[in-house]
Amino acid sequence: MNLSMIIYILSWIGCFSGLFLLPSCVVALIYREPEGFVYLFAAILYIGLGLLLTRRRPSSNRFTALDGYVTVALAWVLISLLGALPFYWCGDISHPVDAIFETVSGFTTTGSTILPDIEALSHCSLFWRSFTHWLGGMGILVFIMAILPLSSGKNIHMMRAESTGPSVEKLVPKVRETAALLYLIYVVLTAAEFALLLLGRMPLFEAITAAFATAGTGGFAVLNTSMASYSPYLQYVIAVFMLLFGVSFNVYFLILVRKFKSAFLYEELRWYLLVIGVATGLVVYDIRHLFPTFEEAFRQGFFQVVSVITTTGYASIDYDGWPVPAKSVLILIMFIGACAGSTGGGMKISRFLVAGKYLRAEISRFRHPRQVKTLWLNGSKVSDELLRSVLVYLVAYLLIFVVSLMLLTLEGYDLVTNFTAVATTYNNVGPGFNLVGPVCNFSFFSPLSKLLLAFDMLAGRLEVLPLVVLFSAGVDGIAGRLRQMKRER
Amino acid sequence: MNLSMIIYILSWIGCFSGLFLLPSCVVALIYREPEGFVYLFAAILYIGLGLLLTRRRPSSNRFTALDGYVTVALAWVLISLLGALPFYWCGDISHPVDAIFETVSGFTTTGSTILPDIEALSHCSLFWRSFTHWLGGMGILVFIMAILPLSSGKNIHMMRAESTGPSVEKLVPKVRETAALLYLIYVVLTAAEFALLLLGRMPLFEAITAAFATAGTGGFAVLNTSMASYSPYLQYVIAVFMLLFGVSFNVYFLILVRKFKSAFLYEELRWYLLVIGVATGLVVYDIRHLFPTFEEAFRQGFFQVVSVITTTGYASIDYDGWPVPAKSVLILIMFIGACAGSTGGGMKISRFLVAGKYLRAEISRFRHPRQVKTLWLNGSKVSDELLRSVLVYLVAYLLIFVVSLMLLTLEGYDLVTNFTAVATTYNNVGPGFNLVGPVCNFSFFSPLSKLLLAFDMLAGRLEVLPLVVLFSAGVDGIAGRLRQMKRER
Repeated sequence: MNLSMIIYILSWIGCFSGLFLLPSCVVALIYREPEGFVYLFAAILYIGLGLLLTRRRPSSNRFTALDGYVTVALAWVLISLLGALPFYWCGDISHPVDAIFETVSGFTTTGSTILPDIEALSHCSLFWRSFTHWLGGMGILVFIMAILPLSSGKNIHMMRAESTGPSVEKLVPKVRETAALLYLIYVVLTAAEFALLLLGRMPLFEAITAAFATAGTGGFAVLNTSMASYSPYLQYVIAVFMLLFGVSFNVYFLILVRKFKSAFLYEELRWYLLVIGVATGLVVYDIRHLFPTFEEAFRQGFFQVVSVITTTGYASIDYDGWPVPAKSVLILIMFIGACAGSTGGGMKISRFLVAGKYLRAEISRFRHPRQVKTLWLNGSKVSDELLRSVLVYLVAYLLIFVVSLMLLTLEGYDLVTNFTAVATTYNNVGPGFNLVGPVCNFSFFSPLSKLLLAFDMLAGRLEVLPLVVLFSAGVDGIAGRLRQMKRER
Repeated sequence: MNLSMIIYILSWIGCFSGLFLLPSCVVALIYREPEGFVYLFAAILYIGLGLLLTRRRPSSNRFTALDGYVTVALAWVLISLLGALPFYWCGDISHPVDAIFETVSGFTTTGSTILPDIEALSHCSLFWRSFTHWLGGMGILVFIMAILPLSSGKNIHMMRAESTGPSVEKLVPKVRETAALLYLIYVVLTAAEFALLLLGRMPLFEAITAAFATAGTGGFAVLNTSMASYSPYLQYVIAVFMLLFGVSFNVYFLILVRKFKSAFLYEELRWYLLVIGVATGLVVYDIRHLFPTFEEAFRQGFFQVVSVITTTGYASIDYDGWPVPAKSVLILIMFIGACAGSTGGGMKISRFLVAGKYLRAEISRFRHPRQVKTLWLNGSKVSDELLRSVLVYLVAYLLIFVVSLMLLTLEGYDLVTNFTAVATTYNNVGPGFNLVGPVCNFSFFSPLSKLLLAFDMLAGRLEVLPLVVLFSAGVDGIAGRLRQMKRER
């Protein structure tokens, strides 16, 4: 591994974490909150230390896939820890593990919270919470890559490790320009939502934080009632933008270059809309008797389906009280998740498409044993590499899910709480059911369980493999060191 | 497809279903039960019709893998329907769907029941219930293959479709002799258990039915209290034999040919025992305070772990009242299941071994991209074919699980009931939790849901693929016929 390069990139991450804190200082200035000094102090500290460390240039430019995956995993751990410190220092979150949980939940765009009373927080902390969603949604390293010329051209490994979905296509030949283009689309869409929210008379602070949290498909709200107290217009705007941020950004790129037909025919998009349509139909049918008008039943059903499948996790109502079939549909689409290459979480539509096509091809091999079938996804051939990556993901995903569930079960809460707590954090949704339902929070878990769930959020956001690679590299490194020590003795 | 050959084999299945009913007639004679006449009538009917149909010899000897899988799937559907009729005709089970559910549960060695009062049944029906476990455990077609010389040498496809686990090895060069050898081991082990149960003063009728149900890892009992009312000695005997019937029969073959070292080193066996050991430790630790002595806690914990992992499903106690961690362990090992090549259900230890090794190999490819690693299982190389079959199984397994869960959820019961009802039938265990717990039964579900769960039992017993192949062949056949009709118009 190229350790000096990894440390160099991590130093830049530290430096940028400081920059990311500056908007919160501005918010503190506007609201005249003393907590702002903590944010300013942390920002200066991170920028100073980061710049100091970046002065040591990496000794080599070699950067393998392994290096890329390890860097991304470490970067996310680092930025979560650095991001958690201001929460703790300014006293808004009193326990360090809670601060870590909240920050990881922010950057991974999960939106699960340990705060029983969100409105008690200072505005600058509320802003920082929502801003982490926006940064984490498109990716922190992607952001840095868009700005900095890091290791020449080898950044594709980091982009692959940080982006969502089984495959990453460069939109334009250069990784750096692709990253910049993605962020451009991201900024424009976020601004559009912000404007439409303001049009619906949402207060400025609420509109900007809601736009950030929707864009990242995060789900942190600044009100204790999440989205329940807003007008139908605002709920529709947010629902539609949640849906839009769950779409693969490749589609927006195709629209940008005026390939409207290709955008419209994008396979994953059509399946994504189909799943949303069917799920909304089922949920609305199941909950229609709970509401005075069909419009309200449709709005609540549509809002929650989109909120859960895009893994945003906003609540427009306490849907824990809905009938079991509706809740089962919501649990199922938690796992399905949004499109690959979007800011959403879950297993992603495209992985299901690849798995389904593979299954079909294997069954047809029974009938025509000598026929070799090529799989296609979104108009490209599915390589053996991609197919294998989907299957490895599936196996690793299930493994981590089951182990987490077994560890969480030791807390002694009921089965539904345990299952949905792991499902909602691992798929980066936010709320679950029962004790972790939409009007509850995660504060009652022990610190160890909170760290476990924070790990699950990271594993979900980075799609398992980077953390597994980091872990196995760590174990191998220790084993190698031990062998070396033995030899030297 | 070779339809005439498939019909020929199915005719033999019909004929044998009649023969299988004869022991129940003997039981009816002993207990002087009028229900025996129904069993005798059905037996004569099946044998007569079957023999009549077998007079039409198949026109061709060609028998492909597709034919084998379709035959096995149809054979299991046929024998389930034929086996259900006596229950219904003699009045012991009043609804035809209930009779089908109970018979499928028997042949697939699931052991879920729709009977609120088991002891109200006639002895010949109770005997037939337990006997279906014994027949289904090792396989119905394997039994017929051991006796009849069917299509020359091509039976390996049927054996593959009916046996448990991802790969089937012939123990001896000929399929027929392998089948006979498997049944020999099966009979000897069943007889040994029967003798040990009699030694512990279990009444004769209870001993023979318990031996059948343990051997098939089924779980039907003849008492309403299942295994709770027996002495510790009897509970230990049954627990140990459940464990033994969950071991791959390859191990017994190795012992038979005096390859003790290979038997002891059999990889899947060691992992199976390890999982049982760890699970027992966890469960016993969690329930130790519920019992006056450690021996009793150990006995109950060990009994239930073995009962669930081998997918037998006997209850020595109402374990639905145990703490959540213990119950979570039991739910987890439901899915793991027993060894490949045993009579147990679930996903099988060997599939987890292959998936885990594959995951490890793919991760190590990050570090050594050019290195090609060969996977090994139980001392043989894992072929690409086997690896693919495990992954296809995993995808198809999850698909059917999720669809079943969503359909069952429409009944409106709670999440735990739905989830464990599907898990326990699909993995051929027997009881679940909450409404389908060990002291409850499945009678409250609607007929449609019962048919769905019966399908899941068949899909679980035949390990998904034969039913999926049958279904896709059916759809393809209809589509082809429609195309042909269109062309003719």
